[in-house]
Amino acid sequence: MGIRLGANDYGKAENRVVRIYRDTPRHEIRDVTVSTALQGDFSAAHLHGDQSRVLPTDTQKNTVYAYAKEKGLREIEDYALTLARHFVADVEPVSGARIAVDEYSWERLNDHSWVRRQSEVRTTVVEVTSAGERVVSGLKDLVLLKSTGSEFAGFLTDEYTTLQETHDRIMSTSLVATWTYAGTAVEWDKTWSEVRAILLERFASVHSLALQQTLWEMGKAVLEAHPEITEVSLSAPNKHHFVVDLSPFGLENPNEVFHAADRPYGLIQATVVRD
Amino acid sequence: MGIRLGANDYGKAENRVVRIYRDTPRHEIRDVTVSTALQGDFSAAHLHGDQSRVLPTDTQKNTVYAYAKEKGLREIEDYALTLARHFVADVEPVSGARIAVDEYSWERLNDHSWVRRQSEVRTTVVEVTSAGERVVSGLKDLVLLKSTGSEFAGFLTDEYTTLQETHDRIMSTSLVATWTYAGTAVEWDKTWSEVRAILLERFASVHSLALQQTLWEMGKAVLEAHPEITEVSLSAPNKHHFVVDLSPFGLENPNEVFHAADRPYGLIQATVVRD
Amino acid sequence: MGIRLGANDYGKAENRVVRIYRDTPRHEIRDVTVSTALQGDFSAAHLHGDQSRVLPTDTQKNTVYAYAKEKGLREIEDYALTLARHFVADVEPVSGARIAVDEYSWERLNDHSWVRRQSEVRTTVVEVTSAGERVVSGLKDLVLLKSTGSEFAGFLTDEYTTLQETHDRIMSTSLVATWTYAGTAVEWDKTWSEVRAILLERFASVHSLALQQTLWEMGKAVLEAHPEITEVSLSAPNKHHFVVDLSPFGLENPNEVFHAADRPYGLIQATVVRD
Amino acid sequence: MGIRLGANDYGKAENRVVRIYRDTPRHEIRDVTVSTALQGDFSAAHLHGDQSRVLPTDTQKNTVYAYAKEKGLREIEDYALTLARHFVADVEPVSGARIAVDEYSWERLNDHSWVRRQSEVRTTVVEVTSAGERVVSGLKDLVLLKSTGSEFAGFLTDEYTTLQETHDRIMSTSLVATWTYAGTAVEWDKTWSEVRAILLERFASVHSLALQQTLWEMGKAVLEAHPEITEVSLSAPNKHHFVVDLSPFGLENPNEVFHAADRPYGLIQATVVRD
Repeated sequence: MGIRLGANDYGKAENRVVRIYRDTPRHEIRDVTVSTALQGDFSAAHLHGDQSRVLPTDTQKNTVYAYAKEKGLREIEDYALTLARHFVADVEPVSGARIAVDEYSWERLNDHSWVRRQSEVRTTVVEVTSAGERVVSGLKDLVLLKSTGSEFAGFLTDEYTTLQETHDRIMSTSLVATWTYAGTAVEWDKTWSEVRAILLERFASVHSLALQQTLWEMGKAVLEAHPEITEVSLSAPNKHHFVVDLSPFGLENPNEVFHAADRPYGLIQATVVRD
Repeated sequence: MGIRLGANDYGKAENRVVRIYRDTPRHEIRDVTVSTALQGDFSAAHLHGDQSRVLPTDTQKNTVYAYAKEKGLREIEDYALTLARHFVADVEPVSGARIAVDEYSWERLNDHSWVRRQSEVRTTVVEVTSAGERVVSGLKDLVLLKSTGSEFAGFLTDEYTTLQETHDRIMSTSLVATWTYAGTAVEWDKTWSEVRAILLERFASVHSLALQQTLWEMGKAVLEAHPEITEVSLSAPNKHHFVVDLSPFGLENPNEVFHAADRPYGLIQATVVRD
Repeated sequence: MGIRLGANDYGKAENRVVRIYRDTPRHEIRDVTVSTALQGDFSAAHLHGDQSRVLPTDTQKNTVYAYAKEKGLREIEDYALTLARHFVADVEPVSGARIAVDEYSWERLNDHSWVRRQSEVRTTVVEVTSAGERVVSGLKDLVLLKSTGSEFAGFLTDEYTTLQETHDRIMSTSLVATWTYAGTAVEWDKTWSEVRAILLERFASVHSLALQQTLWEMGKAVLEAHPEITEVSLSAPNKHHFVVDLSPFGLENPNEVFHAADRPYGLIQATVVRD
Repeated sequence: MGIRLGANDYGKAENRVVRIYRDTPRHEIRDVTVSTALQGDFSAAHLHGDQSRVLPTDTQKNTVYAYAKEKGLREIEDYALTLARHFVADVEPVSGARIAVDEYSWERLNDHSWVRRQSEVRTTVVEVTSAGERVVSGLKDLVLLKSTGSEFAGFLTDEYTTLQETHDRIMSTSLVATWTYAGTAVEWDKTWSEVRAILLERFASVHSLALQQTLWEMGKAVLEAHPEITEVSLSAPNKHHFVVDLSPFGLENPNEVFHAADRPYGLIQATVVRD
């Protein structure tokens, strides 16, 4: 029985690119972190240290920066697709490319000044291979909280269960959401904003019997409104807010004072797909 | 020559308190991290392990949570002052208390749902001792960027200088600002918002010949507008954005594509005071 | 076309468990972080908020702590297997369980005192389903550096390539390694230590023409020495150390002074498998 | 009443310097992060943006790297003193310099390969002004744990106290220690190692009635053994390990299974000085 090289890829991770559009006095800004990863037959590099088929990660970095000027950096999905297609089409040993982009948002102060806005991050991961193109966009670090409208009751119990049922609790999460597009003829910015709005609306409006249910409602609403999206994946830490027992001090605490715990946290993950 | 105990304090750091006001269907939220530190003659605990004069940090934590209900948690300065005064007035061995509060802001979605807003954090540090009361409020993680209107030229050079002058660069920082109040009869929330607005306005509007100059203009403007503030301290990392050299690829880069560097960073710190 | 629930799981992440064995004056310590994730048919919870088949994550946490006493916590693989088997065998709706454990090592000072040792973390991920049992152990945060014995030359170039060849560079990484066991009749602690030793030895001894080659040699050596291991996966950030240009100051720098950069970094990932 | 510039300084923070000594096949490595901060009359830069007295932080960075070669980087205290003296002596507007160095330790694998060792960091902060020179060395991230030999009882109580006394608890901390030298004629490496050994020995051996007492014993022992040290400051988070209540599951837990909590934590700080 022999030993052989299995799956492998390589690239330049976390290139920090800021692109300013300054054709008019009213500048525009795009602030992103870009990671590249290339697949192909790189076995000579592994087995013999032969780099003749290896495009250096330094070159990938250069391309990331050069393309921000040469091809432009407006909608991160377009930018990532352009990069991925280039590596696959123009660099012979490369058969697949995965480009991941995180984008940070800024709020305008004047024509050329900004303040960092939401803590949340817009994301995309683009994969181009001989099998086709795949765009998975999303967001992360979207921190949400409801102070009522959330229950947790009727759950399964066993000999290790001590949790009490509650019909009114805080529900809070730092949401990671990703959604897969059926194609690439998409209005990326517009769609992203609409999906974000749906996620927020569902979180706020659904009376939640379970975090699972809220996630399902979020994902379903996105698929119902956006036929160009084929599936939605949601990962939601249950950021526990424990009601503090103030009775030793002669105080009632009807869900008013909470301890926000760090660890452990529940972690609920679900994908909603088309049938 | 003997050995003795010098300065010392102790407390409970980073209590995560969330306070919901739910007297009407339209809830209010306060989300804070509270740290306590007590001073006094605790030498017996150090020298002999005698705890009879030591109020446990666990009790301090309990008080932090209980006061969020018993005394209320609205403006963080009032809440911190109330805690500090309690420890000094009511716990005999305690001669001084320092209460630090960080507050995270939320943007309302509906009556009882919110999304985390600015990444920036509002801060206060309150100290109560026999010498009096001192309130230092501020903010941190306020990330700012200008894509023009910033120069760096005419600087001192020596044999280790390689930097080129520039008359148009990106200036970006993650500002930490603190300001000291002359007293405690202050409209805390209103003043904090006004100071923040001044800091943003000065950053955006001042044509900057040096980050030092921008900080000075920020601090001066706050003191001019707010006689109840006696000094302003500003700590500003110079988050370097380097123009990427695209000439090897036949591309010009007139301040359009930047590499946002992590480390090292310039660090400029200044205090502006009344004469 | 309908919408349905796809893949999903839930659990309690990052339970921080410290287990002291104190049967004799010479105590033993195990310090771990445990995450649980359960799979099964939980569609009622998602679609209708019906929790009757959902064992709360709080109960999972309780089980994690209780088993540290009831079943013991010595070798993390055994502990994780015991937990995973319990959830699948004893909780009716659960068809699969994944238990991840990170272990932190301590160096003994005396019978009951320790100092935190290596920054690196020992890991295991155990999966139990109807299809069988799978144990993937490993380590992360293993930071390595070679000051010579590493080249990078003969690589593919294109119009975006500016990198110069080098026949003597620093090679440094923060290694993540995982390896899959063929079964569960394994001396876990002994094997883990032996694999770690092989990884260190190969990193140090192989004259590296590429980081890819070093990873391959590491993985191959592990498979050659350990028939009970079926594959090895390695993820290695190339922590760039750039030679600082000191020539403006009249100084030579023959690979003596380096700038250790944070981002971007190369990221090389490879799996070595049996044929 | 006017407004004026108060205290201010500026510098280049967190320069990541790796210095290899390769005069023989058996290399040596120094891995440090260096921060510079200069004081002086820089009011023109603040008030008018006039940089003619400002040595750029970029030049300070160049000097940090150049000196690693030109002057050498062996003991971090010597290196920091050399840098600080240079800025004050050779750059006219500079009246004071503060150089902070963090050093990461490596364990040798062979002549030119290493693995990162203790997670702890060695530190020094050197200040040179017209008033003289001051060296404060230390360590941070020294994580310690005792599984017995620690009590907490007889403490002060008030109406917010719920804590129970204990005569056997886990005591754990992530120690930050700094000590001030009387002069600069010191064997830096040797002294640092001896102080570290004393701190570990005292932590392990003292039967602790309070974390305060342990800190006092640590500081006192250092001063007794090292006349060249004038004071020791210790900052110790009380990393709480809570005994998990396993009684609902019919299990006893005689200090065997603990939940290691993140926040809040007690924070005890003390300075031990010569009389």
